[in-house]
Amino acid sequence: MEFKISRELIEQIQLHIESKSDRDLELLLKDMHHADIAEILDELEFEQASYVFKILDSETTSEVLLDIDDDLRESILNSLSPKEIAEELDEMDTDDAADIFAELSEEVKKEVISELEDVEHAKDIVELLRYDEDTAGGLMGKELVKVNENWNVLTCVVEMRKQAEHVTRVHSIYVVDDENRLRGRLSLKDLLTSSTKTHISEIYIPKVDYVRVDTKDTEVARIMQKYDLEAIPVIDELDRLVGRITIDDIVDVIKEEADKDYQLAAGISQDVEADDSIVDLTKARLPWLVLALFGGFVTVRVLGFFDDAIAQYGVLFFFTPLVTAMAGNVGVQSSAIIVQSIANGTLSDSIWKRLTKELTLSLLNGLILATILFMGSYFLLGYDFITGITVTIALIVVIIVASLLGTFIPITLHKYGLDPALATGPFITTSNDICGIVIYFMIAKLILGF
Amino acid sequence: MEFKISRELIEQIQLHIESKSDRDLELLLKDMHHADIAEILDELEFEQASYVFKILDSETTSEVLLDIDDDLRESILNSLSPKEIAEELDEMDTDDAADIFAELSEEVKKEVISELEDVEHAKDIVELLRYDEDTAGGLMGKELVKVNENWNVLTCVVEMRKQAEHVTRVHSIYVVDDENRLRGRLSLKDLLTSSTKTHISEIYIPKVDYVRVDTKDTEVARIMQKYDLEAIPVIDELDRLVGRITIDDIVDVIKEEADKDYQLAAGISQDVEADDSIVDLTKARLPWLVLALFGGFVTVRVLGFFDDAIAQYGVLFFFTPLVTAMAGNVGVQSSAIIVQSIANGTLSDSIWKRLTKELTLSLLNGLILATILFMGSYFLLGYDFITGITVTIALIVVIIVASLLGTFIPITLHKYGLDPALATGPFITTSNDICGIVIYFMIAKLILGF
Repeated sequence: MEFKISRELIEQIQLHIESKSDRDLELLLKDMHHADIAEILDELEFEQASYVFKILDSETTSEVLLDIDDDLRESILNSLSPKEIAEELDEMDTDDAADIFAELSEEVKKEVISELEDVEHAKDIVELLRYDEDTAGGLMGKELVKVNENWNVLTCVVEMRKQAEHVTRVHSIYVVDDENRLRGRLSLKDLLTSSTKTHISEIYIPKVDYVRVDTKDTEVARIMQKYDLEAIPVIDELDRLVGRITIDDIVDVIKEEADKDYQLAAGISQDVEADDSIVDLTKARLPWLVLALFGGFVTVRVLGFFDDAIAQYGVLFFFTPLVTAMAGNVGVQSSAIIVQSIANGTLSDSIWKRLTKELTLSLLNGLILATILFMGSYFLLGYDFITGITVTIALIVVIIVASLLGTFIPITLHKYGLDPALATGPFITTSNDICGIVIYFMIAKLILGF
Repeated sequence: MEFKISRELIEQIQLHIESKSDRDLELLLKDMHHADIAEILDELEFEQASYVFKILDSETTSEVLLDIDDDLRESILNSLSPKEIAEELDEMDTDDAADIFAELSEEVKKEVISELEDVEHAKDIVELLRYDEDTAGGLMGKELVKVNENWNVLTCVVEMRKQAEHVTRVHSIYVVDDENRLRGRLSLKDLLTSSTKTHISEIYIPKVDYVRVDTKDTEVARIMQKYDLEAIPVIDELDRLVGRITIDDIVDVIKEEADKDYQLAAGISQDVEADDSIVDLTKARLPWLVLALFGGFVTVRVLGFFDDAIAQYGVLFFFTPLVTAMAGNVGVQSSAIIVQSIANGTLSDSIWKRLTKELTLSLLNGLILATILFMGSYFLLGYDFITGITVTIALIVVIIVASLLGTFIPITLHKYGLDPALATGPFITTSNDICGIVIYFMIAKLILGF
């Protein structure tokens, strides 16, 4: 069960490809899960992957196509004719087909559409393309089982059988009225225990969770997680049932959202993986570094203002990395907690209550850290009392300001509809470096008077 | 559908509690989802929450108990008698019951066990307690539908009906042999279309995904995500079917894991939320700050070694925050990409290949940033050529070292079975601060000769 691709397996497959032993390849891949085949293809060169892909049966290829890396998929789609692409899409669920379809170029799209065999399927795919990728509409599929409230049980069972042919996993039976408006759901048990002439309107459950086509994907994820749902129906502006979202798509949303926040906190501005090209990785990493560099210019300039202190109090400059490091760490901690609470929907306090709490917290942390700093400066590093007291007072103020900034910035970004996660990482550390240095040297100037 | 608790609703409930209007409370909460009721209780004071809890019917309380915050649950459990706790556990699925049970004190545990009505349920709960929390055994529940391969279809249907009574959602029908070893699964369709005398052994599907009791929870999550599973059976050392894990538990694992990595990257060492107490938040935040502070002592000491430079090249000290900021940002970026690739299981290269790639990447980034730095130092800040060139060369070396450390440390931690995410955040920034300063001043000394 615990499948791991071994070097040997890959080499064996490469040998079979070189010797064009299609039979051996087929035999080797026959009982493999499509997700495993996809993992193997990702490890091969494009020509090899393409060779294997052409050997697989059409049911497998459509699944594999969904599981492979984006780059490989693009290459394989480019190597297929519009007719071949249409055949793949015909095998897929509408939501997956729409995602793949959206990746095609405009001219290929037209040709593919005309090649799709199932007209209903084609209509569904085109309809799904209308919705934004990050909304319930962009996530949903059209495969669902629905019955009319005016049907009787017998009609219902006959119709359900027809519909179920296109649906891999039936999560729920939805009940609609004549205008296709969602009315409720039907329990299989009630359906089976009622007489064939009973009307659906008498036995359906009118309570049903749903989302609207324009609900944000992260909100759908929150709702499905909160209510432990495995599927949720989607309705349009006129309350009409237009699709359903299943939990596996939501798992992907949760994972992507978490990855994105993590990368933002690390100063990476695009969705990259270690395996991506140097150019992609540079594009993702350079922007925040350039920002941090310009922040660095500001710190150089600020320190330049205090160059009077160099002759008499040069030792102050030894403490700048310590002060900026503490400011950075405190700021990142504060902002991370806020960003996560906003993401989990657990941030219910007002901004003032939050800032007051953060103030208490940073005062407590600041006092503890300042005590350690003072002792360290005096006993460990051997600096005099006045240096120790200067740095210590500065540290407390810097920690308080850093934690308030770390709280205030993400909340404000969120208030104005921006992603609060932008505030973590390089942005907050750079701002705190600058603030920290200004505060530190101003306090030093006040105490030491240079 | 999109439920949001309003201030008004909370106030209304508080009024009903004060005036002891139980009828009004019941009416208000009657049609509410248990997850929403839990959200309301979390907003109330303990006495109020406890009052509302006692009004709810037993089916609702057991669900609410699972959804409320840990602190409130602990308080409510403390206020219940062993018999009352046992009644709650009797209503829950075994995996949830075991989780709650594990939170009780040793003496309460014994009393609760003796009060449990359903002996089988009690046995199951006790069995589940044996497994580590972060393994498949710790995640699984005992509620499943299984049939013996030697039964015929008729026996099978009769037995399944009995079993299904205890199971909320039937995901799969598992097939076992006489020793309860997992043999495969049964499709409902095949069961319904076969004659009543057909033996299960003739119609079951021998291919089934499974995990073992000691499989790590994150590995279970990876497998279920990869193969798009909504449930997976769990087998013990002797291949016996002992439980099943459902996707909703896996969603929680994915979310927790992502939260943990994010918090580690932000230097937060425990699972905290913005709403937690000041003491909890301090406990979570102080340890990494103290580490960073001691790292700061090292930087003060290192800079002290170079105090000869102060008189002649004081300007070098103006650039230290810039150098450490760049080192920190580059290091966090590198380590974050590695940590994420390890977590997603997509890191297949050898460590040497990875370090070579990182070297190329950081050389490229370093050259671009160094050019900007040189121009900035000369034109923007107005420093002389030799200062600019010194800082610039140092920056390139610092960036390369920081990115190699950021790559090497998480890979090494992972190799020795430690969480690579430990390497992100304060740990990497502190190490890079120290290395960055040492490199910077050594290069400056070489070039300027102080």
